[in-house]
Amino acid sequence: MRGTVLYAPRDIRFEDRPEPEIEKPTDAVIRIAATCVCGSDLWPYRGINPIKEPMPMGHEYCGVVEEVGSAVTKVKRGQFVIGSFFASDNTCPNCTFGYPSSCEHREFVSTAQAPLLRVPLADGTLVATPDIPSDDLIPSLLAVSDVMGTGWFAADAANVKPGSTVAVVGDGAVGLLAVPSARQMGAERIIAMSRHPSRQKLAREFGATDIVTERGDEGVARIKELTGGVGADSVLECVGTQESMTQSISSVRRGGYTSYVGVPHGVEFNGETLFYAHVHLHGGPAPVRRFLPELIRLVWERKINPGKVFDLTLPLDQVAEAYRAMDERRAIKALLKP
Amino acid sequence: MRGTVLYAPRDIRFEDRPEPEIEKPTDAVIRIAATCVCGSDLWPYRGINPIKEPMPMGHEYCGVVEEVGSAVTKVKRGQFVIGSFFASDNTCPNCTFGYPSSCEHREFVSTAQAPLLRVPLADGTLVATPDIPSDDLIPSLLAVSDVMGTGWFAADAANVKPGSTVAVVGDGAVGLLAVPSARQMGAERIIAMSRHPSRQKLAREFGATDIVTERGDEGVARIKELTGGVGADSVLECVGTQESMTQSISSVRRGGYTSYVGVPHGVEFNGETLFYAHVHLHGGPAPVRRFLPELIRLVWERKINPGKVFDLTLPLDQVAEAYRAMDERRAIKALLKP
Repeated sequence: MRGTVLYAPRDIRFEDRPEPEIEKPTDAVIRIAATCVCGSDLWPYRGINPIKEPMPMGHEYCGVVEEVGSAVTKVKRGQFVIGSFFASDNTCPNCTFGYPSSCEHREFVSTAQAPLLRVPLADGTLVATPDIPSDDLIPSLLAVSDVMGTGWFAADAANVKPGSTVAVVGDGAVGLLAVPSARQMGAERIIAMSRHPSRQKLAREFGATDIVTERGDEGVARIKELTGGVGADSVLECVGTQESMTQSISSVRRGGYTSYVGVPHGVEFNGETLFYAHVHLHGGPAPVRRFLPELIRLVWERKINPGKVFDLTLPLDQVAEAYRAMDERRAIKALLKP
Repeated sequence: MRGTVLYAPRDIRFEDRPEPEIEKPTDAVIRIAATCVCGSDLWPYRGINPIKEPMPMGHEYCGVVEEVGSAVTKVKRGQFVIGSFFASDNTCPNCTFGYPSSCEHREFVSTAQAPLLRVPLADGTLVATPDIPSDDLIPSLLAVSDVMGTGWFAADAANVKPGSTVAVVGDGAVGLLAVPSARQMGAERIIAMSRHPSRQKLAREFGATDIVTERGDEGVARIKELTGGVGADSVLECVGTQESMTQSISSVRRGGYTSYVGVPHGVEFNGETLFYAHVHLHGGPAPVRRFLPELIRLVWERKINPGKVFDLTLPLDQVAEAYRAMDERRAIKALLKP
């Protein structure tokens, strides 16, 4: 088969790769129905994360189980399944606490931009849909694999509750999907920070009540203005830079919550600043597996439509163009069909 | 009257000071029943915080109301009252959210090591006891003014729940009082980190189930060992240094909680470390006013005895010796009687 490999900054290739096989009795192999490019794939693509050797790419996936290892008991051949970027056993203490992305036996799934994928710890990792989904549900089911699960975690970690005032910093796919997540959790007011008309429009469709185009100190001032000088109850940091983190912490009310769900790049928190901000801080690699059953249900019942975040669909062999379009911000998020 | 003034590192004087008066209609003046030296007083005393001009000292207090301003309606002359180090109106948004120590109109109370004290925003700040307390309750009532309220916040901010496993980093008065706080909140296991026999003993009396004498990486390893390799549900950082903060964050389980209640001195958090630790972080100046009614009730009903933390009692005019004893760690905490 052919799969996606990153060789150097902006050198992405779709090339011959060994077909995945069952390596451990707990593995499954699935035939990918759809995969996509993640904002985090752009860190190495742009050369910000080093590329030490050719990197197979892709960690968002859904598809049909082709084969299972001898120790797999729950996942069955022929099921349509979704998993997260971290395979997890779903039984260790960290999983039990609700943090499968810190599973003691976690393995990063990194070869999903291909027609076939080996998934470790299949019973813990994969969640099956009630039935084989209709085609129109595929984009949303793919989205819950990572980007929607991560947006959901942003809202969950920032304690979004019925009636909350929420600000979302970042209009990438995760930030945009944090909006319907906050909506589902009952937020009364959702302020999306974006200066791009197409992204603003999508944020509105997802339930944003206000759009703020300003950034940095001006962005903070606007949030304060919109919240009677107090700040937002919950600020969801969906970028991962020092600038957006500082902005997020400055925008939250005293005793409020800031979450952060993108790998922080060069971010430092000053102890005294956090102390006097009286902020609650929580984040990390999104424990998507925890949310999969609920998110699959919401998609299945057509209560959420996170697949709308894909504004570009390409055949998998055009994966290089998918990266380019996202890198140049011509696309919010690109779906790839094998 | 005479009051306490810090002139330079280790130059503490008890000297003539103007008698406090009602300055604003919302003020009260109280006659101090007891006051004390705070761990945070040692920062300027040791010259770690700069002393720009002679600093009147003291922010922990309880006593009898002598006089109230014309706008004070709840607090009455003759009542025995307790307040926190931040005067607060108890009505602004930040107070309403439960963060009176971030009150929009807060004023730091800084002249309490004296026989008389002016308290701003008296109606918001002061809480009266049910009656004039017997003498033996005075130390515990004084303790709730700051040190017990701060230990309580450490436990509250770290989400201590029935059944929790809690580690307390720091065996100063706040750390020691975080122990009975965690106990009251139902913690099943409370690990106190201390290498001082007298403090270990007090921690045990307050309800600690385990003592860990190791620090740094060895301390972390011991906590992991005691928790089946997982880490504690809640780690209460009661020191304020980089070393203790790093230790605290490394000791918490994935998805667990670290609180910090002492002003961080030179503490920086690395974004990526926090991210992969999956920790919840919360802290700040303890919102003691929020807890006063509950803590006064617990003391009044003799369910907690935080006054045990005072292992030195001196007449107020020997305040300089009280600072010396705490600086040299001969005393855990010194109570001063006018």
